[in-house]
Amino acid sequence: MASVIIREANRSDCSDIAALIQELAAYEKLENEAIATADTLEQSLFGPQPYAFALLAEAGGKLAGFCIYFHNFSTFLGKPGIYIEDIFVREMYRGLGIGKLFFARISEIAKQKDCGRIEWWVLDWNQPAIDFYAKMGAEAMAEWTVYRLTQDKFK
Amino acid sequence: MASVIIREANRSDCSDIAALIQELAAYEKLENEAIATADTLEQSLFGPQPYAFALLAEAGGKLAGFCIYFHNFSTFLGKPGIYIEDIFVREMYRGLGIGKLFFARISEIAKQKDCGRIEWWVLDWNQPAIDFYAKMGAEAMAEWTVYRLTQDKFK
Repeated sequence: MASVIIREANRSDCSDIAALIQELAAYEKLENEAIATADTLEQSLFGPQPYAFALLAEAGGKLAGFCIYFHNFSTFLGKPGIYIEDIFVREMYRGLGIGKLFFARISEIAKQKDCGRIEWWVLDWNQPAIDFYAKMGAEAMAEWTVYRLTQDKFK
Repeated sequence: MASVIIREANRSDCSDIAALIQELAAYEKLENEAIATADTLEQSLFGPQPYAFALLAEAGGKLAGFCIYFHNFSTFLGKPGIYIEDIFVREMYRGLGIGKLFFARISEIAKQKDCGRIEWWVLDWNQPAIDFYAKMGAEAMAEWTVYRLTQDKFK
């Protein structure tokens, strides 16, 4: 197995992250929805108010995947959690345990920051991912549905 | 109709918010899960790193409901959105349009901050809420399921 490291992304990684987002969108069959660019990412991740954090995986020195997360908040717990916006591993690097390494790093961060939960969404047809999450002990919040209001519908 | 105002919460409202959270938990039949206190809320909402924001509704000068939101992030858009963690209106104040006022205020904030989306979850059996969201033009993201890893399962 190629030596894998997980590291924090920095400003100079934004072009690489934008490319990975395009690959993820293709995997999710949502190419038309992915309009993030290196510039918008730099502003959102490294601007005056960072809205999210990025981790990168490197295998044998090559970029193998990324993870983007932010802090959500639980009213019931009265404290923050971590929401994983995306985890993506390039096809040729799957099976190396990179997804597990991302989750392990996120767990560490959650413990350091006293976060109560780690949450994320999964597409219902993404069975390999669902199997992986079940093995970790994650719970499907099946009685909840996500609703979205897009910009054109804002009052 | 009693005159309704929506205002930003401040530090001195945390006890009231904690009480409203208990009422919300009872409505959602999740009383056992709501452990937030005035102290944990003060830390999370008004501490050195605020994790979320609270709005309060007052009707005729009385506390009628609350809304808690935070900024999420869309990888595909490369920019932040708003996630509504909770909206709750006390039973005696329902039907006054307070839910709409909360959504209108959140829409304003989303526009000011150039947020791409407003998102939230709803319990599948909460038909009054689902009808309200449909009228606003919100889209159910039915092909996604939320997964949760609780603290006891962190690696």
